[in-house]
Amino acid sequence: MATTIGYLGPKGTFSKIAVDSMFNGEIKKGYKTIPACIDAIEKNEVSYAVVPLENTIEGTVNLTLDNIIQTENIKIVSEVIVPIRQHIMVHPSNVAKWKEVTAIYSHPHAIAQCHRFLRNQFSHLEAQSMTSTGAAAEYVSNHPKEISAAIANHLAAKEYGLSIVEKDIHDFENNHTRFIVLHKQETALTSNKLEEKGYKTTITVALPSDRPGALHQVLSAFAWRNLNLSKIESRPMKTGLGNYYFLIDIEQKMDNVLIPNAIAEIESLGCTVNVLGSYPYYLHSGNGVTLAV
Amino acid sequence: MATTIGYLGPKGTFSKIAVDSMFNGEIKKGYKTIPACIDAIEKNEVSYAVVPLENTIEGTVNLTLDNIIQTENIKIVSEVIVPIRQHIMVHPSNVAKWKEVTAIYSHPHAIAQCHRFLRNQFSHLEAQSMTSTGAAAEYVSNHPKEISAAIANHLAAKEYGLSIVEKDIHDFENNHTRFIVLHKQETALTSNKLEEKGYKTTITVALPSDRPGALHQVLSAFAWRNLNLSKIESRPMKTGLGNYYFLIDIEQKMDNVLIPNAIAEIESLGCTVNVLGSYPYYLHSGNGVTLAV
Repeated sequence: MATTIGYLGPKGTFSKIAVDSMFNGEIKKGYKTIPACIDAIEKNEVSYAVVPLENTIEGTVNLTLDNIIQTENIKIVSEVIVPIRQHIMVHPSNVAKWKEVTAIYSHPHAIAQCHRFLRNQFSHLEAQSMTSTGAAAEYVSNHPKEISAAIANHLAAKEYGLSIVEKDIHDFENNHTRFIVLHKQETALTSNKLEEKGYKTTITVALPSDRPGALHQVLSAFAWRNLNLSKIESRPMKTGLGNYYFLIDIEQKMDNVLIPNAIAEIESLGCTVNVLGSYPYYLHSGNGVTLAV
Repeated sequence: MATTIGYLGPKGTFSKIAVDSMFNGEIKKGYKTIPACIDAIEKNEVSYAVVPLENTIEGTVNLTLDNIIQTENIKIVSEVIVPIRQHIMVHPSNVAKWKEVTAIYSHPHAIAQCHRFLRNQFSHLEAQSMTSTGAAAEYVSNHPKEISAAIANHLAAKEYGLSIVEKDIHDFENNHTRFIVLHKQETALTSNKLEEKGYKTTITVALPSDRPGALHQVLSAFAWRNLNLSKIESRPMKTGLGNYYFLIDIEQKMDNVLIPNAIAEIESLGCTVNVLGSYPYYLHSGNGVTLAV
């Protein structure tokens, strides 16, 4: 039986780019929300789920974290980092007159990310909000007579038969979204298509109480072992404002000595530690954009 | 002349709740995106701008941070923390039959936040996406014959004349959004309506290079001075993947000795420090919800 992969749909979104870069012939099923996607793993509707963790267009990291942390048995087994590249695209019959478009559609976050481009090139138009960049591309594809454009990624252009007329119109370079692959077993998922960039171990640490210097003590346990932390982020706990836990990425594969010892010491300080996964990460090239003009 | 305040529109959003709690008779102008809102201050179209910084429905913190950090002269002068409470509401003529609604509309993030409620009570329906919770409320208000519901906040119910039929339907309690007030002068903005919960100083610290233990050294400068850090978050720099700066909230008002000395020491380690503001923060009660059933 083919493996089923859940992802944050619809087609033509950055989530789908991440899924396609990690999985080949499997059945891919789009879900409307992040919790629905994570639910689907819990209920064994899907074997893997691909959801955004950081810096995303379609959803927020909070929803992903809140929902993983509630589950006992779901682990992060892989990560794909996808460059967020936004392009402007029109129906093929409107390529020649694309600068005269009368409407531009996209997701509100994508519109915000292309603020400078829109202000410089189309200051007379007000971009119209759609529920996703994919939905915007679909609308433009279905209304060729309207002479409208969508802001979306190259996969959306392909899925909906649109022509990209100007590429990389987003304001900031080096904008990426981290997508994580979730699974019920702790078995790392390796890619045969992408080059491995490294290995990470992600943990959460809840401090016993909000006292000055507690975090400093926790970091000492990593620092003197030369364990490099590539990310540290405080997140509000669900027990009330002002209580935080920390999400920490250790730039190393889980071993038998260093990381377990650091965790044991942190726990002996009264902290609660939860290992969310130890997994390889991959960088998507972001290539595949063809200009129509 | 009345002061003009910019905020992330439309009416009936959580941003508007934050604005109304801080400002009284002034002119309030809704902007479609966070960058447009911040642009408006730079161009002196507005004197203050209220934008979400963390854990938000309508936008992402990344857009806010990216855009503040690009500006030299815009400071955080106040903060309002608003509880994110989602309610289900219908047209007043449909209150009696609200359990038979045939469609539910909301913003995709709000739909995701009410995942369990929807699964338990309306598993036969698929919630429909709108561009904002306010837009969903407006639609339901304009289509009384459809027997539909919107998921939105109490302000949206009031703005669009809808009746709340079940309150607090979101999955997680203690869900809040931090809204910051931006201004061109470094003058703290105090509220005469809300109780002051404390004072914060927010700084960014860019480490000279990605080496193990660098962050630990930075935190030492705060720890031995008993300066409590209520938030620390690594953020990707725009110079490429793997380069991070840190966003740090110090739970104290800027003084003449402790914080400046800590910053001077951190800078002498080769770090770049930027003070985004020193400001009071307020907690909105979240009250004002009236049930129709």
